[in-house]
Order: sequence, then C-alpha cells, then structure tokens
Amino acid sequence: MAQTLFDTHKPLLDEAIAAIGSRGYWSAFPEMPSGRIYGETAKADGLAACNARLHRRFVLDLPGVRGWVGAERSPYGFDLGVSYPDCDLDELFAAIRCATPAWVAAGPERRAGVCVEILRRLNRRSFEIAHASMHTSGQPFLMAFQAAGPHAQDRALEAIAYAYREMARIPGRVRWEKPQAKGATLAIDKTFRIIPAGVGVVVGCATFPVWNGYPGLFASLVTGNPVVVKPHPQGILPLAMTVETARQVLRDSGFDPNLVTLVADTPSAPRTLELVRRPEVALVDFTGGPAFGSWLETNLPHATVFTEKAGVNIALIESTDDPQGMIRNLATSLCLYSGQMCTTPQNLLVPASGIRTPEGIMPVADFTAALDTAIRTLTADPAGAVELLGAIQSDAILARVEEAALDPRALIRPRAIGHPRHPDARVRTPALLAATADDALIRQELFGPVSVLVATDGASAAIDLAAELTGAVGAITWLAHSTDPATVERIEDAAAAVGASVAFNLTGPVLVNQSAAFSDYHVSGANPAGNATITDTAFVAARFRVAQTRRPARG
Amino acid sequence: MAQTLFDTHKPLLDEAIAAIGSRGYWSAFPEMPSGRIYGETAKADGLAACNARLHRRFVLDLPGVRGWVGAERSPYGFDLGVSYPDCDLDELFAAIRCATPAWVAAGPERRAGVCVEILRRLNRRSFEIAHASMHTSGQPFLMAFQAAGPHAQDRALEAIAYAYREMARIPGRVRWEKPQAKGATLAIDKTFRIIPAGVGVVVGCATFPVWNGYPGLFASLVTGNPVVVKPHPQGILPLAMTVETARQVLRDSGFDPNLVTLVADTPSAPRTLELVRRPEVALVDFTGGPAFGSWLETNLPHATVFTEKAGVNIALIESTDDPQGMIRNLATSLCLYSGQMCTTPQNLLVPASGIRTPEGIMPVADFTAALDTAIRTLTADPAGAVELLGAIQSDAILARVEEAALDPRALIRPRAIGHPRHPDARVRTPALLAATADDALIRQELFGPVSVLVATDGASAAIDLAAELTGAVGAITWLAHSTDPATVERIEDAAAAVGASVAFNLTGPVLVNQSAAFSDYHVSGANPAGNATITDTAFVAARFRVAQTRRPARG
Repeated sequence: MAQTLFDTHKPLLDEAIAAIGSRGYWSAFPEMPSGRIYGETAKADGLAACNARLHRRFVLDLPGVRGWVGAERSPYGFDLGVSYPDCDLDELFAAIRCATPAWVAAGPERRAGVCVEILRRLNRRSFEIAHASMHTSGQPFLMAFQAAGPHAQDRALEAIAYAYREMARIPGRVRWEKPQAKGATLAIDKTFRIIPAGVGVVVGCATFPVWNGYPGLFASLVTGNPVVVKPHPQGILPLAMTVETARQVLRDSGFDPNLVTLVADTPSAPRTLELVRRPEVALVDFTGGPAFGSWLETNLPHATVFTEKAGVNIALIESTDDPQGMIRNLATSLCLYSGQMCTTPQNLLVPASGIRTPEGIMPVADFTAALDTAIRTLTADPAGAVELLGAIQSDAILARVEEAALDPRALIRPRAIGHPRHPDARVRTPALLAATADDALIRQELFGPVSVLVATDGASAAIDLAAELTGAVGAITWLAHSTDPATVERIEDAAAAVGASVAFNLTGPVLVNQSAAFSDYHVSGANPAGNATITDTAFVAARFRVAQTRRPARG
Repeated sequence: MAQTLFDTHKPLLDEAIAAIGSRGYWSAFPEMPSGRIYGETAKADGLAACNARLHRRFVLDLPGVRGWVGAERSPYGFDLGVSYPDCDLDELFAAIRCATPAWVAAGPERRAGVCVEILRRLNRRSFEIAHASMHTSGQPFLMAFQAAGPHAQDRALEAIAYAYREMARIPGRVRWEKPQAKGATLAIDKTFRIIPAGVGVVVGCATFPVWNGYPGLFASLVTGNPVVVKPHPQGILPLAMTVETARQVLRDSGFDPNLVTLVADTPSAPRTLELVRRPEVALVDFTGGPAFGSWLETNLPHATVFTEKAGVNIALIESTDDPQGMIRNLATSLCLYSGQMCTTPQNLLVPASGIRTPEGIMPVADFTAALDTAIRTLTADPAGAVELLGAIQSDAILARVEEAALDPRALIRPRAIGHPRHPDARVRTPALLAATADDALIRQELFGPVSVLVATDGASAAIDLAAELTGAVGAITWLAHSTDPATVERIEDAAAAVGASVAFNLTGPVLVNQSAAFSDYHVSGANPAGNATITDTAFVAARFRVAQTRRPARG
C-alpha cells in the first residue's frame, strides 16, 4: 500500500504537537529567504511568478462565476491589475454542499495529511506569495517573506496540531461495561464520529492577510469544515494563491476542490455581509478593525465568531538600566512596517517626573528627543529605511500620518522618504503626538505610524491608565520598562487582569511586536482587542462536534 | 506540611481524567441509595434534613439581602414554603469582585482540590438533596437520588476533569531559545498565567436542576470564575443546598464564599434578564426551553452562552427481531418520569405498511395496541407506577396532558393515577397522538408525557423526516429499531449529519433516555437542541484565558 499523506507528514505533525505542549522555540519552515534553503533561483522565480499574475485574470475554476472583480493597488505605487472570479453565492454554496460529505468521511488523519501537504506546497511558493504580499500590504520584502511564508505556515501548522490533537482524543469506538448485581455486566458498544460545525469563512485583513488568515483557514479545514476565504479587497492576491494551492492539493488527493473557495470583492461592492449571513456559515474568523469586528461578534448568532481587532497597545516606561537599548528597541518597534502591526505600541506612558536611569533622571523632553534621534538614525539611509518601514498600506493611514505632520501636538513629525526603486511608494517615518491622560486621542486605535506620548503622574497612575484603556478599548501588547521589582510585579498583575501580553525591558533584537508560533499566545481574548487566542484549544475545539451511536453489545 | 485538598483528591481526579480519555464506563459516586454505602440512617436523616428546611427562610449569608423570595410547590401536592435571600445585584457583584482575585491567584490545583471537596460534601448530602429535588421536579425518589446526587456529582467531576486537564496543559513558565547565526541563541523567559473569563451564571431548569446545573457551575468555578446560580423558580431548593455547601467549603478553605452565590426569584418577578445582562457576566450556562435559550444565544454578545434546549426526539421503528423487548423498552422510556426528560422520544415514526418482525408484519394498529398494553402493565400497580412516573412537574405540562386526553387524535389516552402517599400529587400515564408527516404537531417540542405517532411511507421517508425535524427543531436523541444493516447505516449517517445521538435496537434495561457521565457526549451542539456538549473540551476551553509575560533571559 502506498504511503499516505498522513504517514508522510506524521513525523512533522508529531513534532508540532510536542511543540504546542512545551511552547518553547520551534519552527517547521525556515524563515530565512536563503537560496541555499529554497533554491538559488527561488527569489527570482518567485518574483517572475508573481509578476506573471499581474494585469490579467486570476483563473480559479470556481463554481457560479458570473464576472470578474478586483481593484488592488500596491502601496509601492502601481495598480496590480488582477481580477478574480466573482461567484454567485447560491451556486458556490451548492457546490460546497456537494464537496463536504467525502471530506467529513475522510476523518482526522486523512484531513491532517492533506492540510500539511498544502503547507508543504505553499512553502515552496513562499517567494511568489511574498511578492504578492509585499505589493498588497506594503510590507518590506523580508517581512513579507516571513509573515506570508514560513511564519504563516508555522501558524497554520500550529492550528492543525491543536485541532488534530483534540480530534485524536475522541475514541472512535468504545465498549461501555457497567457492573451489575451478582457479577453481571451491562454492555453497550458506542461509536463517536467527528462531524464539522458547518462552513467556515475567513475574513482577511489588509496588512497581514496570510499570517492572520491561515490559522482559521486550517483549523476549520482540518476539522472537516469547508472554508470560504474572503480577503480584504486590498489583500486578495496572496490569499488567491493560497486558495489555488489548497484546491490543487485537494484535487490531487481525490477530494473536491470546492472545499476551499474564494470570494473576492472591491471596496465599492463589498460582499462580506452577504457571505457571513448565509445560514450554512457556522464559523467566522475575522481580522480587522474594531467596529466591524464587534459588529460580527454581536450580529451573527448562527456562527461562532473568532476575532482579532487590535486596540491601543501600551508602552509603560518607568525606569531602565539601559536607556540607549530601550530607546533603540522602542524606535525599531515604532518603525517596523510603519507601525502597521496589531502589536505596535501606540500609547507611550512616561512619568512626568522623568525616567530613572543609571545616569540619573531622563526628563520627558530628553526621552522624546532621544526617540526622535533613534528613528532618524534607523531611517537615515533611504535604501535601508524602506526595508524597515515598508510603505503605508492605505489612504486612511496615510491621511492620519499627514494630519499628524500638521498637528500642533506633534512631538516627532513624520517624514516622507523616497523609495529608491518605487518612486510612487508612500513611505513615512513614525509620528509622536502629545496627549493628556483624559484625552480622547488615546482611547481610539490609531493604526499605523502615529503614537501618543502621555506624561503620567507616576508609575501607579500609568498602570491604572494602561489597565483602564485596555479594558475599555483593548490591547494585545504592553511593553514595560522598569528596574523596580515591585513595579514590575504590579504591571504584571495589572496586565494579567486585563489580558494583555506584557514584555519587560526589551533592549535587544527582540521586539514587542513579534509573536512566535508554537510559543506565544497571540491575543488573550480577554479584552476588546479580540475574542480569540491564536492558537489555543478554545480556537479549535468549537469547530467540530461528536455524533454518537449506542448498540447493545453482542458477545 | 499538611496535606492539601488537591493532594487528597488527586487520585480521584486522575481516575476521572483517565475516564474522559477512554470514555468507557466509570463512576466516582455510588448510584445506589443504599444504607451500606451511605450509612444506615442516611435516608431518614436526609428526609428529616430536607423537611427541616420547609416553611421557613433558607438563610445564606449573601451580600445585599433586601428581602426574601420563593414560591415553590411540590408536584406531589404541597407548598414548600421556603423563602430565599433576595439580593441587590450591585451589592452582590461588588462582593463577587472582591472575592475573585484570591481565587484566580490560587491556581488550577488549589481550585480543583476545593471543587472536588465540594463534591465530596455534596455526596454526603445526597439523600437530603434528593428529597429537595423530588419535591421540586416531581421525580420519583430513586431518580431524584441518582440525578441530583451521584450522577450529578459524576457530571460535575467530569467537567472538573476536562477543565483541569486543559489548564494543566499550559506550562507556567518556559524559556524560548531561538538559534541564531554562529551558534548564538536568543533567549526569552516567558510566563503563562491562567485568567478567568469573568463571572459565570448558571440558569437552572425545573426538571433536572442539579444534573443540568452542575457541569457549568463546576467548569466555570474551577477555571477561576465566580459563579452565580440562578435556579428555575420552581427548582430552587436543591441548588440552594448546593450553594450552601459550596460556600461552606470555600470558607473552610480560606476563600471568600461569595465565589458561589444564589439569585432566587419567582415566576411573577423573574430576574434572569437583569442578571445575565450585567457586564461582568462572561459565561452563561442555560438549560430550559428553546425560545428563551435561543434568545440568550442571540442577545448576549458580551457572554459565551452554553445552551441545552431540547427539541423533538425521534423514534424510528422499521423492523425488530424482538418485538416484545422493543415495545417494553419503548414503553418504559415514555413512562420514565412521565417523559419529562430532554432525551425522551417524542415523535415515533413507523412505516404505514407495518413493522417487520420474526413473526411477520406488525401492523401500525397492533404496534399502538401493544404499546398501550405495555404502558398499562408498567403502571398497573399504583405504588410501583408512581416510582416510575413521578409527578407532573408544571401546570403547563399538566394542561398539555389534559388536552391530549380529550384530543380526537389520541391513540393512547393518558390516565390519572392516585398516589398512595400524596393524595394531591398529579400523576399521569403517557399519551400518544396520531399525526401526519406534514403536521405542525411534530414540529414543536411537547415536553412531558405526550408523544406522537406518524405512519410514514417506508424507512427512507422516515429517515428524511427525522433529519428534517432534527435540523429544523432539534433533537438530542434518536431511538432506532432495524434489523436491516443497510437501513441501520443510513440512519447512522443521517443522525450524524444532523448531530443526533442514535441508539439502536434497545430491547433490554438500557433506555435511550439515559446519558452516562464520562462516556456519553450529552447533546451534540450541532442542531437546535443545544449549542454545547456536556462535557467535551469546547465546554471548558473558553472559560479561561492565558496572560503572558516575556523577559530577556538572564544567564
């Protein structure tokens, strides 16, 4: 008998399952875009493959195609010109309904084998998908490669591992033998069959469509649910490539490709509501803005909705034994992809009396000046700057940066940087505005490279404010700098109480922005920044159910 | 160092965790109300203890008591006369807020130890709680003992085992070490702290307040959430006793008793909405009618809502090799506690052409007559009948039975039975009405001893109808009789597709009504009968979250 995909991928799956148990460092897919790993021509081949998709139809043999849609524009300054099938949802869901039974009947092992095989093939397309991701999100190339390639694949594998581990705990059959009086036994044979929740919909975001989209996609698929991918209208191409590969692997494995489908749309004719309101939809994975995310949480009682909405991440800076390292680390966090990350600090809380350092008190004005200098240093060389900053993803973020440039409260003004190869790219350095603790400005998400400095009345006031903001508006991350153990403990307790992940005293290469698959619990689900953790057991356990039979045992 | 409650109860918890892994037969608490197990005077002592609570205030030192409420009446024909503290919710929730941090900080092991200790003490009160349960639900004594005593305690332990197993998987701390170029390592120390979701509310039902209430109560409590118990206004007493014991054990263990509180109400002044709309509430466990359950699922976006709503359970009878056993088993299922179980068959689907048996075709009329005879035989002796039927729980159910008695469609008419010891008890035998496949009667839950017979156009039509009804209205159980392997397979597939638990060819003592802790997945969550399974991982995993810290590792 030929080796199955499950047999082939079982060792990797076992390693992934061990990794989610220990949650130390582990990775399945190499993160360096190196020719020695991916092949010497991989980078050029990937660029060529991505370019070959531009200015034409992205053909996917989806059911019910009634036209072609798409209006993506690269933040680096050109239209992608790609159009995608525009499907009638009644026809699409009819095809999905036909595709489902065989996938359910295949069971967890076969499904896990197919899902890991999809990841293997996606890994080989990492460069191509990286270019597609770069020119939809505006990420710099290295980030696009990692976040849309190996890191996203790792996160997908993490979700598959959680889901498979959970399904593998359900015994397929069992004999229930209850002792009776006088040594007799009452015996019942039972079977337990895993059944899917329904259709899963993945609603993608514009900045990390792949990294944020894969966990829900693969968690739903491996548990037996067909998945409809609904990308952000500005971030379709890398997910269309993903859907293409998933469909190919499903077909190659004898399954109906309509288990993974794509619904593309444009900003002027959005289709998310039409899609998620379908009664067949039982699971929705959403990444995006708080307003729509909260609407989905509230208004789709027929579906389980997993959200990542972000909020107002906090930096609490009280004292440090390495002021230079602290400033450099923070400046890098703010610059990285122009702060367009759900984990970038937004509200910087600093004692009005200044920051304690080994060289004495650093006044707030000196802190601001040092941060400005560090940002200027990091972005001094345009060629290097664009590989750190990337490009501004959307018109709305650009408008916010332009406003900040003119804002009388600006402590650090954003600067435009000319991109050496993309003259129309919109590249900006981060801005910092001043605000007070009761300002409305710090109570709304300012997604992108605009942060706010608040001088607080000491560390206690800062902790209370951080907790209040996180409870009310949400935060995924807190960055904290303190050399005082009692303050550290109070920050840790306060962060835990509102479900923020807190990183202390980062002065080296590790940034608060980063989240590592298999180790970090990304988003706690315990404050308005999101209702789900990527990935924990709760993220997978509601995606399937158990159907049971009982029969009197015979002999 | 003194042995902790966790140390004391760890062996039992370990056995329970093994049992949820294998899901064969296992039980922690003896189900026979035997003097040899529970003490020779336990039954009399329990009755006396229960009687001592009647006609007076049930004192619990709850915060914010502003008066006394309660209007319970025994279905056996007398007022209980018990009144319970009526609390101001602002004061109650203020006290709950104070109680919470120490419970969270205690961690999973200490909490599990306290929760199992509560079960141990509840087990000693099994007879007392059984009498309270009998005289609120109308159950016969043996059922009240088992369902409100050892079986409920087993279900609570099952929920604790699931929750503890899940929490124990989260490592408390870990060093993340990522290999760098040239043999260097990037090292981060991480901590993972379990945090609760918020306040849990358990909304009880009238028929099995304890059996249905304990899983949510203990799943929320052991994961760190304070719990407010909101009983059905006709089923307060056994849950008030439960709250009393839980508060005593919490106090004895050094915790604030306000971690478990009671909100009692009356039918004329219900308080559930006021309670579940509190912003502090993050978890709601509901058992009860479909209308209110669906309302809760839809209208509480701030809380995760677990429901068991029941529906229209199905009996599909196509053929049998033991017609007598089949009829006797079915008649017992219909009589047991007057069909007032969420698992009792309601719609009996029989081929119009009759049921195949070894003695030839049994026409539908013969089936009905045999069922009538079997019910009469089971209930011929009033003293025995009342120990099977119990009493009719509510006026609404009694009205439905009285209507059935006069219904021209009645095939089997309900009969009143005089209770030998409780002259005002309302005891009725089951009724059977005739309907057609398109009748509205079979598309609504007829909770209690009214079933409906539908003569279908063969087995295929019956399976299609069962699937349609289950998908539209919900069903927890299907009972099926067929000797044809192909029909059995089609029933099994159809039941799995709509998430009904199906029991085949029951002709002996096991009834489709029964659900065994640690083995059966009670409710699939995959059709309108409920959105949760008691108990699986999904039932516990969303009740807690993980708060994380990161620090650069030092040395």
